[in-house]
Amino acid sequence: MTKNININADRLWHSLMEMAKVGATENGGNCRLALSDLDKEARDLFVEWCEDAGCSISVDAIGNIFARRPGKNNTLPSVMAGSHLDTQPTGGRFDGVLGVLSVLEIIRTLNDRNIETSIPIDAVCWTNEEGSRFAPSMMGSVVHAGVFDLDSIKASTDIDGNLLGQELRRIGYAGTQVPGEQKARAYFELHIEQGPILEESKKTIGVVTGAQGQQWLEIHVTGTESHAGPTPMPRRRDALVGASKIIQEVNRIGLNFAPNACTTVGMIKAYPNSRNVIPGYVFLTVDLRHPKNGTLSKMTSNLKTFCSRLATSDKLKIEITDLVNFPAVSFNSSCIATIREGAKLLGLPYKSIVSGAGHDAVYMARVTPSGMIFIPCKDGISHNEVESASYDDCASGCNVLLHAILQLAESPH
Amino acid sequence: MTKNININADRLWHSLMEMAKVGATENGGNCRLALSDLDKEARDLFVEWCEDAGCSISVDAIGNIFARRPGKNNTLPSVMAGSHLDTQPTGGRFDGVLGVLSVLEIIRTLNDRNIETSIPIDAVCWTNEEGSRFAPSMMGSVVHAGVFDLDSIKASTDIDGNLLGQELRRIGYAGTQVPGEQKARAYFELHIEQGPILEESKKTIGVVTGAQGQQWLEIHVTGTESHAGPTPMPRRRDALVGASKIIQEVNRIGLNFAPNACTTVGMIKAYPNSRNVIPGYVFLTVDLRHPKNGTLSKMTSNLKTFCSRLATSDKLKIEITDLVNFPAVSFNSSCIATIREGAKLLGLPYKSIVSGAGHDAVYMARVTPSGMIFIPCKDGISHNEVESASYDDCASGCNVLLHAILQLAESPH
Repeated sequence: MTKNININADRLWHSLMEMAKVGATENGGNCRLALSDLDKEARDLFVEWCEDAGCSISVDAIGNIFARRPGKNNTLPSVMAGSHLDTQPTGGRFDGVLGVLSVLEIIRTLNDRNIETSIPIDAVCWTNEEGSRFAPSMMGSVVHAGVFDLDSIKASTDIDGNLLGQELRRIGYAGTQVPGEQKARAYFELHIEQGPILEESKKTIGVVTGAQGQQWLEIHVTGTESHAGPTPMPRRRDALVGASKIIQEVNRIGLNFAPNACTTVGMIKAYPNSRNVIPGYVFLTVDLRHPKNGTLSKMTSNLKTFCSRLATSDKLKIEITDLVNFPAVSFNSSCIATIREGAKLLGLPYKSIVSGAGHDAVYMARVTPSGMIFIPCKDGISHNEVESASYDDCASGCNVLLHAILQLAESPH
Repeated sequence: MTKNININADRLWHSLMEMAKVGATENGGNCRLALSDLDKEARDLFVEWCEDAGCSISVDAIGNIFARRPGKNNTLPSVMAGSHLDTQPTGGRFDGVLGVLSVLEIIRTLNDRNIETSIPIDAVCWTNEEGSRFAPSMMGSVVHAGVFDLDSIKASTDIDGNLLGQELRRIGYAGTQVPGEQKARAYFELHIEQGPILEESKKTIGVVTGAQGQQWLEIHVTGTESHAGPTPMPRRRDALVGASKIIQEVNRIGLNFAPNACTTVGMIKAYPNSRNVIPGYVFLTVDLRHPKNGTLSKMTSNLKTFCSRLATSDKLKIEITDLVNFPAVSFNSSCIATIREGAKLLGLPYKSIVSGAGHDAVYMARVTPSGMIFIPCKDGISHNEVESASYDDCASGCNVLLHAILQLAESPH
């Protein structure tokens, strides 16, 4: 039945470009850090569009927004789909946004055709998926899934010391609904791949079977700060020289565990950060990923062993904090099958793929049968202002999502 | 004659400790960044003390302060001595301050004894010696010596985009005197060593014969910023991995040109500096030093060759800017002899030493016969809040300075 329904590709694209005006950067990207004024502006626009499409809005205590299109039987759990509207400091116009606005487009399409589904459809916008301003990332879905405690999460601070709980209230998205209360029988998320695999293999749809495990670490390297001129080389305890060895080792671990390991030092801060002072302290963040939990543990322990030897050889103090561990995840087999069938039905070239990035769907998978759809992004580049996805691929991904949603919303048993 | 005159060690120490209250840090150090509100406060206090000691004040267009104690013949060039009151972000209580307040103490001592010198004595406080907020360092003496143009220096900006010229006006130290107009027949500067040599060899006085050459570089490493999860290792152009190789090489060059080379990366900034984004751009500062100009050039060219190869091998764009080059300097032989004779006369253990750090005296040496006196600092540590010099050593250094000043001020021909 659903084969003949297609979303309005022009309207989807227009909504994406309208949303991209909120927090637009000079270089064509977006900066909408979680719970900033610009995040609020994006949320307000999404809520306005959903209300115009006849949805009722609810917001939970961590700021997740649920826009509901009612079905015939509204006491049953919904089919939920969505993603996030926050971005990296120099993020793109598709990461997250595509997943949120696709569900809105699907609701508009169903409205156009006066289709009433058996059960309700929830479009969700999760809070702080990026984790760029406040750690951890995927915060909204983490709290929804009951993995972390709400109060401890609300106490997390950004680099300027602002409390997350206060920022939620400030932008007007500290809702009253208890996180996790919005029940769904299935969750779907459409997202750009953020990697090069689909583009290289010329496939339009990635049927996501699971997600890599992730280990986030924070490393504090302490040496002795001293004058860069008169301090002889052998007497130095240079924290930045030590940190640079750690950066090299993190990279080496990624290469040693090829082809599936990804390892990154994304953030560095040296202290006092002055041209003619030997740095006395350096802060580093480490992001290690692998699809197998056992290998990820081995990568982590290799790095810790390296740091412990470095501390001795270079007379540095090196402290390592385990910040977050996301175990590798497999998505629900029936959700995966539904997505695969949709792609087949629509005649779109597809392939199975493992997500290298974390997504809200990874946490939803803990409490709800979940699945993800990927579409290609140009040159595999994401978390970058030049991030780009094509008009056609966005429409194709949205159509596969439409079919998955209708499949579940029309045959609720 | 001067053998029997000694400065008031208690008063000198008291002045040092009073000044250390301005911009005092929690850990016992000082933060008085050039042309900040706290720098203004320190300058105001120095001017007040000098006026109380009967000096007349003049300020030049780059904010250098000259406090003059008149002599018998005030049409002749002065004997000038001083240093700076600005500090590193986490600086100590002696670097610079000792040199400024020692001249004040000498003027007070001469007042106590009603000694009128043949020619005037100028106590000078140079602007922005540290170069931590605004580059280049030793700015006041650089402009005084006519090495850089005043207008280009006034256009330099701090990290927040504040213009130096505006900051000078804001704190009330954009004077009317033409830089370089204050003429001296000799310049002396007392300073802590900022290295371990005097302490290790148990000498109280360092007779400084010259200063190391310095080359400051800025390096811009550009790769591609992209998502840390789904970007396979072989496809990455990670600017921070490239930067870490440069940091290693800078350190290696310091060790290769032992024992006199000093090499430091003091400042690093990664962009966008987010945990799960591969850094697309990194900024580094490099500080290379050696007492021989030829060796310093070789060190610089070695680093540039390394960066050029790295750009090719790691597919990065690496741009290098030559920020400042301070050639190695020899001080005036007669000033050196005067200082050595003073130490001998006072029975203080002394040794000849080459300065590893840059100092205002290095620039004064271009236009005025100049000399420097070092005293030990604890563990050789400077540019650090724990920087420390002893009561006795401060007094000894100040007495050697008194003898050098009197030697020149009393026999003006």
